[in-house]
Amino acid sequence: MQRQWRLASRPEGIPDRSHFDLVEVPIPAIEPGKAVVKTLYLGVAPVMLRYMRNETDFESPIALGSVMAGRGVAQVIESDCIDLPVGAIVQARVGWQEYALIDTSQRPAPFVLPTDLPLSHGIGAVSLSGITALVGLRDIGNVKPSDRILVSGAAGGVGSHVAEIAKALGATTVVGIAGGPEKCRRLSTAMGYDEVIDYKNQDIDQALDKTFPDGIDLYFDNVGGALLDNVLGRINRRARIVICGSISEYLIDKEKRHKFINVQNLGRQDAKMEGFFVFDYENQYPACIDTLANWVRNKTLNPVEDISEGIETMPDALADLYLGNNVGVRMVKVAEPDLPP
Amino acid sequence: MQRQWRLASRPEGIPDRSHFDLVEVPIPAIEPGKAVVKTLYLGVAPVMLRYMRNETDFESPIALGSVMAGRGVAQVIESDCIDLPVGAIVQARVGWQEYALIDTSQRPAPFVLPTDLPLSHGIGAVSLSGITALVGLRDIGNVKPSDRILVSGAAGGVGSHVAEIAKALGATTVVGIAGGPEKCRRLSTAMGYDEVIDYKNQDIDQALDKTFPDGIDLYFDNVGGALLDNVLGRINRRARIVICGSISEYLIDKEKRHKFINVQNLGRQDAKMEGFFVFDYENQYPACIDTLANWVRNKTLNPVEDISEGIETMPDALADLYLGNNVGVRMVKVAEPDLPP
Repeated sequence: MQRQWRLASRPEGIPDRSHFDLVEVPIPAIEPGKAVVKTLYLGVAPVMLRYMRNETDFESPIALGSVMAGRGVAQVIESDCIDLPVGAIVQARVGWQEYALIDTSQRPAPFVLPTDLPLSHGIGAVSLSGITALVGLRDIGNVKPSDRILVSGAAGGVGSHVAEIAKALGATTVVGIAGGPEKCRRLSTAMGYDEVIDYKNQDIDQALDKTFPDGIDLYFDNVGGALLDNVLGRINRRARIVICGSISEYLIDKEKRHKFINVQNLGRQDAKMEGFFVFDYENQYPACIDTLANWVRNKTLNPVEDISEGIETMPDALADLYLGNNVGVRMVKVAEPDLPP
Repeated sequence: MQRQWRLASRPEGIPDRSHFDLVEVPIPAIEPGKAVVKTLYLGVAPVMLRYMRNETDFESPIALGSVMAGRGVAQVIESDCIDLPVGAIVQARVGWQEYALIDTSQRPAPFVLPTDLPLSHGIGAVSLSGITALVGLRDIGNVKPSDRILVSGAAGGVGSHVAEIAKALGATTVVGIAGGPEKCRRLSTAMGYDEVIDYKNQDIDQALDKTFPDGIDLYFDNVGGALLDNVLGRINRRARIVICGSISEYLIDKEKRHKFINVQNLGRQDAKMEGFFVFDYENQYPACIDTLANWVRNKTLNPVEDISEGIETMPDALADLYLGNNVGVRMVKVAEPDLPP
């Protein structure tokens, strides 16, 4: 038998344990062309609230009563699929459960992880968080050495990688925004940020005036809302705003969402604002993972991870994202591998 | 002697004759490395109001009392510059005057026009208006055959070229928005638009519901404001919003400008909104002009021009843009060429 989290109801506000049921079910049997995997780590991401509410059209809806969707690091323990050999450590859409039956038809397809790095990095730095930061900075943000860069949600799963990756791509100065002294301390000491703004304890206008007296060239946005609008009023010519996430908007009623006054500055400054989703860049995953893994090996990229133990902690891990409790990549360690990776 | 319009005061609202002085001054004498040109056509563009107000940082400010800036079609009549030979027909920053002394240091540099086409096309279709439509659709909008395309300000100097150029680039259906029955008739009969919305006489929500039941993939925006926000609420995944102009905003006090409620849809739809200015694409001008001239020759592109006669009509030509009086490329014919082009 194994444990599995099922979606019990659709949350309006922050999701918690009441929206899930933890059940015991049999470990799945092998099927032709598929593989049985053992879950080692499970990740959480802000976008999950949109899946739970059935708000997206780029991910299958999650029916009430079915296993909660999510990706994780897993080891293949039984296989009838040549691309998923027994023993391989893969990143895949396993769902919130201790064992899963997977195949290569899921999109993005399962991908094999490097085994010389901590397996937990397969949730973040050498996986979708790292790829999101890399694609966002390089392909959407077209980051340049002279760019003055601002990152919101800088202590989060993606944001915690952005400063180091931006510098690996040539940037010189990266400013991060986060909430609270502990997060802000970690931005400076562990995540490569040159300057830090604590939005909970500083006047944001004064802080932006001081850190960006000559305007902002690149904004990597994880929060949306009033801060995004504020930045729109400070962009330089040909600036780029990379919309990675908008966590401030997920929990607000549509009527109460921020009304933007600086949008037309995009036209005045011949600037760009672009949203993107890492699932659309699947063909770049192998090259990105190589790049990210090498940066971890040579200490260019130093992942900060925030790990709780046991699959029973999954709802709390997810809630932490919306409560702002995580520092770095929030994940849950579910099990140790059975076989040598 | 020649006539010359000088900037007399900075307009807050729509510019009119009172903001200019028409004066008589000597025809400039030739100088080393320069050329004297005779102005044949002068163009007007919405952005000129921003020059007059000294609001831009990408064009030299126009001092009060100096010649009004603007580009035109001109013939070289005396030259000490190998790139500007006598007789050549060029598009250049000549200013609002009958004769000008120019050199190749102005940016964008003067460029030579094809002489087998009407010289007036050097103001619009085979010049900056056409290049703006082409670069906006192709390089910013990444136009695709399956795109459902909306164009605002569709009867304007740039908009009047957008439908035909979009189709030359593979698009199948282009919908235009303009104000009033005459403009809307010309969109269908002369400018290649498949469907037309008259914003002055139709309910815009109903019209967009009807013409875009499956959402909008590409929006070529010349007006900004509430219509842009409305479109933001209707974009499809990976949609592109090309901000060419925001004429609705130029005449409104900052406090009264539209407040946007649908901006975050860019993030939800992984879509892009990008402003651009044709001056930044100078290195593409020769190739664009070749392309546009060939489209005119083979009737793919059929320019609609709105020409008044005599340099004394310049302030009215400019005002027409903000009053919405122009259909197609508004320009002024100043003189005939002296030499065979």
